[in-house]
Amino acid sequence: MTKENVLRTIDSPADLRRLHRSELPQLTRELRTFLLDSVSRTGGHLSSNLGVVELTVALHYVFDTPADRIVWDVGHQAYPHKILTGRRERMRTLRQNGGISGFPVRTESQYDAFGTAHSSTSISAALGMAVAAKLQKVKRYSIAVIGDGAMSAGMAFEAMNNVGAAENMPFLVILNDNGMSISPPVGALNACLARLTSGRDFAQTSTEAEYACASTSEAHAKGPNVPDTLFGEFGFHYIGPIDGHNLNALISALKEIKQQPGPHFLHVVTKKGKGYSFAEQDPVRYHHSKEAFGLKEGIKPSSAPPGKSYSQVFGEWLCDAAELDSRVVGITPAMGEGSGMVRFAELFPHRYFDVGIGEQHAVTFAAGLAADGLKPVVAIYSTFLQRAYDQLIHDVALQNLPVIFAIDRAGVVGGDGATHLGSYDLAFLRCIPNMIVMAASNENECRQMLYTALQQTSPTAVRYPRGGGTGVETERKMTAIPIGKGEVLRHATGVSKIRIAILAFGSMVAPALGAANLIDATVANMRFIKPLDTDLIYRLATTHDAIVTVEEGCVMGGAGSACAEALSALCVSLPVLHLGLPDHLIDHGDPVKLLADCGLDIPGIAASIRTRFQLPLSETQ
Amino acid sequence: MTKENVLRTIDSPADLRRLHRSELPQLTRELRTFLLDSVSRTGGHLSSNLGVVELTVALHYVFDTPADRIVWDVGHQAYPHKILTGRRERMRTLRQNGGISGFPVRTESQYDAFGTAHSSTSISAALGMAVAAKLQKVKRYSIAVIGDGAMSAGMAFEAMNNVGAAENMPFLVILNDNGMSISPPVGALNACLARLTSGRDFAQTSTEAEYACASTSEAHAKGPNVPDTLFGEFGFHYIGPIDGHNLNALISALKEIKQQPGPHFLHVVTKKGKGYSFAEQDPVRYHHSKEAFGLKEGIKPSSAPPGKSYSQVFGEWLCDAAELDSRVVGITPAMGEGSGMVRFAELFPHRYFDVGIGEQHAVTFAAGLAADGLKPVVAIYSTFLQRAYDQLIHDVALQNLPVIFAIDRAGVVGGDGATHLGSYDLAFLRCIPNMIVMAASNENECRQMLYTALQQTSPTAVRYPRGGGTGVETERKMTAIPIGKGEVLRHATGVSKIRIAILAFGSMVAPALGAANLIDATVANMRFIKPLDTDLIYRLATTHDAIVTVEEGCVMGGAGSACAEALSALCVSLPVLHLGLPDHLIDHGDPVKLLADCGLDIPGIAASIRTRFQLPLSETQ
Repeated sequence: MTKENVLRTIDSPADLRRLHRSELPQLTRELRTFLLDSVSRTGGHLSSNLGVVELTVALHYVFDTPADRIVWDVGHQAYPHKILTGRRERMRTLRQNGGISGFPVRTESQYDAFGTAHSSTSISAALGMAVAAKLQKVKRYSIAVIGDGAMSAGMAFEAMNNVGAAENMPFLVILNDNGMSISPPVGALNACLARLTSGRDFAQTSTEAEYACASTSEAHAKGPNVPDTLFGEFGFHYIGPIDGHNLNALISALKEIKQQPGPHFLHVVTKKGKGYSFAEQDPVRYHHSKEAFGLKEGIKPSSAPPGKSYSQVFGEWLCDAAELDSRVVGITPAMGEGSGMVRFAELFPHRYFDVGIGEQHAVTFAAGLAADGLKPVVAIYSTFLQRAYDQLIHDVALQNLPVIFAIDRAGVVGGDGATHLGSYDLAFLRCIPNMIVMAASNENECRQMLYTALQQTSPTAVRYPRGGGTGVETERKMTAIPIGKGEVLRHATGVSKIRIAILAFGSMVAPALGAANLIDATVANMRFIKPLDTDLIYRLATTHDAIVTVEEGCVMGGAGSACAEALSALCVSLPVLHLGLPDHLIDHGDPVKLLADCGLDIPGIAASIRTRFQLPLSETQ
Repeated sequence: MTKENVLRTIDSPADLRRLHRSELPQLTRELRTFLLDSVSRTGGHLSSNLGVVELTVALHYVFDTPADRIVWDVGHQAYPHKILTGRRERMRTLRQNGGISGFPVRTESQYDAFGTAHSSTSISAALGMAVAAKLQKVKRYSIAVIGDGAMSAGMAFEAMNNVGAAENMPFLVILNDNGMSISPPVGALNACLARLTSGRDFAQTSTEAEYACASTSEAHAKGPNVPDTLFGEFGFHYIGPIDGHNLNALISALKEIKQQPGPHFLHVVTKKGKGYSFAEQDPVRYHHSKEAFGLKEGIKPSSAPPGKSYSQVFGEWLCDAAELDSRVVGITPAMGEGSGMVRFAELFPHRYFDVGIGEQHAVTFAAGLAADGLKPVVAIYSTFLQRAYDQLIHDVALQNLPVIFAIDRAGVVGGDGATHLGSYDLAFLRCIPNMIVMAASNENECRQMLYTALQQTSPTAVRYPRGGGTGVETERKMTAIPIGKGEVLRHATGVSKIRIAILAFGSMVAPALGAANLIDATVANMRFIKPLDTDLIYRLATTHDAIVTVEEGCVMGGAGSACAEALSALCVSLPVLHLGLPDHLIDHGDPVKLLADCGLDIPGIAASIRTRFQLPLSETQ
């Protein structure tokens, strides 16, 4: 083979398995080059994928995929897997409308054994698959590949604690230990991993060197006088650590594992960003790029977005609040950067708690802080709050503790797609007693709502979308908003025969105003989903002919649904139209286009109202 | 002091701390006697409380409560704590309407530092409290007491992994190791604990013997050549195991711990049911008694309830389904008995998976099983499904995997109170794409709905309340119910001027029928919350003057709210009344009375309808 043509011959893992072992180093070089080129054109996750190039090649080389199952935890490191499993050409469509997903998706490929995107699900899923194979008397291997960051989440532990279910079964957990979740790692588990990799046979040097690989046979032969590892305690056969960039070591280890009854635990040490010096030096920045970038220039330090993002607004507010009130502390489940908390962490290191990927603990830890007099602020993405739902109910809300939830990425999220959709929070929060739930309609309102939350003695949630808002300046001065009070932003002029009042929530206030200009409607910025401003609803319902609700969240059970309940309770009957996110998955793509597809932009909202209430175009424009 | 009068002098832990150490054995004897007497009169949790008598006395004796904080994990072992903290006389009101709770509640006593009832929250909460004390420069101890069963849940692991936050702080985790969660223990963690207690200085014999207690000073002095335990890996100072019924050993260990910087991990071995031979021999049966029992006779083997409970109906169905379809498997997060799965576990041991207290893992494990061709049935209480909400969304629903959720204890639960209320499931489930959600109106319908669920290729949930239903016989034959179709059970005769249609869900169908007889309304058993029978709703809305929805679940976002959304979408406006559980905590008590208090019995439903629609009594009766 000549240079740069092995990868082009690989349209499936079967092609890969036909290669001679000596051809594999060339393949991994090409794969890494292709990956870099591809991600620099589309944006997407980078460091994690560069780190698993050799591991991916070795897995598909040794195991009989798709018959054997590989579950990629978190899934953002599955690009090499996608490239090797028939999706090489489609990589240029990655994370774009109609293109392939940035995560494994069962409907996208038979090689994607299990969809992943949230962290720490892989061991549970692969264990289920192993048991399914056994009960159906099918011989196949079930493999979970999980990073060290993901291991800190409770459900990985629950699965490991249950690994007895895979006794003597072909079941393998591969720990991809790069000493790094998205944020630098925290917690005791990482300290334990560091101890494992610092001692014994393993020394981390360059990939080119040859490593002693702890033989699996030897591992099996180890008696009770061998020091237990955390993983051995669970009943795994622990093998490792081995160098995850050494193809020969990986292939040898996997081949030996394949011959032995499981469950196995293979500890592989990799380097995030491997092979791209920018990413090796700054794996956090190179974790993910929102857009294309020049490979030679690297991702630009700060592409200076037109306005502030909501995450920035939150971060600034948190610093200001912490300065004003010594009781304020900030908590993140491993999303300090994404949530805009970098400066807070620098300014208030003793009041900043990155608890690792552990949303359940984050919320109950906050409840403990609040129970003893502090004002904890849990910064969390809408989709990850789903992980701590019981803790929010049982530990925070039922005890009426003043924990503040700063809910980022509420609504459509763009490239991450359906798994990260922040669509459900209003529905799952508003049914909980004692909660106060707000949605910010612009950056300044977000800041004032957070300040309002800080004044409360009850749990409060402030939700805001991914990215920026209307671009409005934030006022330095902070003023509390009256609880449960909305405001009318526009009054219908009476041009339209049908007097319509739009009850808009959060990010939909701006497009609702735009639509109201087209159809001449009244618009209220409702601000609160709970408690709802029922006085305002009554006033508008009794002075208008129809009500329209609009929110960037699921219609089912959402804010509009709350308005319908309120109208019932107020004994007012009038036509109501609910606009919001539909009851089906919303895939990845450009968020502006996705919202438009859902009819949640100005023309979409106007069109829905016109259609429902049969408004002629002429009459209202 | 003479026999049987020490306890009477203890109205607070301060009184306890004034006792001489030599008086404590007498106190523990009296406490155990009082506890037994008390629980035998009121019902409640027994085995766990008998197991912690000495530990409770020792904790309040050594630590300065309430300044020092004790968080009792799961909380059902807090009766001795309640008796010693001023609630001795109120124990006779335990779990009854207006009486004290069966769990620690912050509003009930200053000694209840943190409310607990769901498992595995204590380490997170106590860690938060320790950090709050440090940041506020308050000197006090924060202590979590957690059972070995509760340790298997992920959030306990997340908290342990974060214990670095308590470095050098007065923070103590006490593992109350009784080798037994509610069900017999499962999992790797328990195997590890068993190894710890079988070796070293510890030998389990009778309480009267003296044990060698691993000195904490010695533990601190231990070097790296001491075998690590699972707990040592996290950075705790591990002390133990010590005998949890040996007061001297406990007090000595706690006193030494108090002198040393933390975080500490004290491993205490206790016997569930200690001191009451019936309970020692059968701690599972004696875990909890629903009602009073004779101490000499013990809890009657099976008090032969009038009809079948829903849990029994589920258990029978599961056995029948498993016989018909080899793909059916059953999963429980440590609630096999409560969920009615004992017989299934006996008949189909290889298809029964008790994963321990680990709801997150239970659901994603089921997703893995379903992804590879099985038909997993997750038996779970409504309140515990909150623990696996993200897994239900991300791993099951988004992938449209045919996992069946058999949701027990949906609605009002009685003695367990607000923390166990199954009020929110309809609200948090119906907003999720791909879900099918049913509510059973009687025992036979429950069986047929479960069978219907088994025929689906989508995730389905069948919810049913705690205890029994209408007493209707279950048909052996199983017939699928058409998806999304309700049925009209009663037609209004036209006596009332206002034609009212009641859309009833699940357990509220029977009282709705009763109420309809009083006020002459139409009644539909809606059966499906999702997909909703919008055809039926349209038919009823256009032939009646008003709609009433009624459900044993929260009004906010619940099934009635779904009906309101449907009416909006159908462009039908008419008066609507939503009946269901109110937006505040519902405390413990007799479930019949609690439902009546919420207006969800026959007179309550009739009265609400009369009031709302101003029906005269005379006209409709």
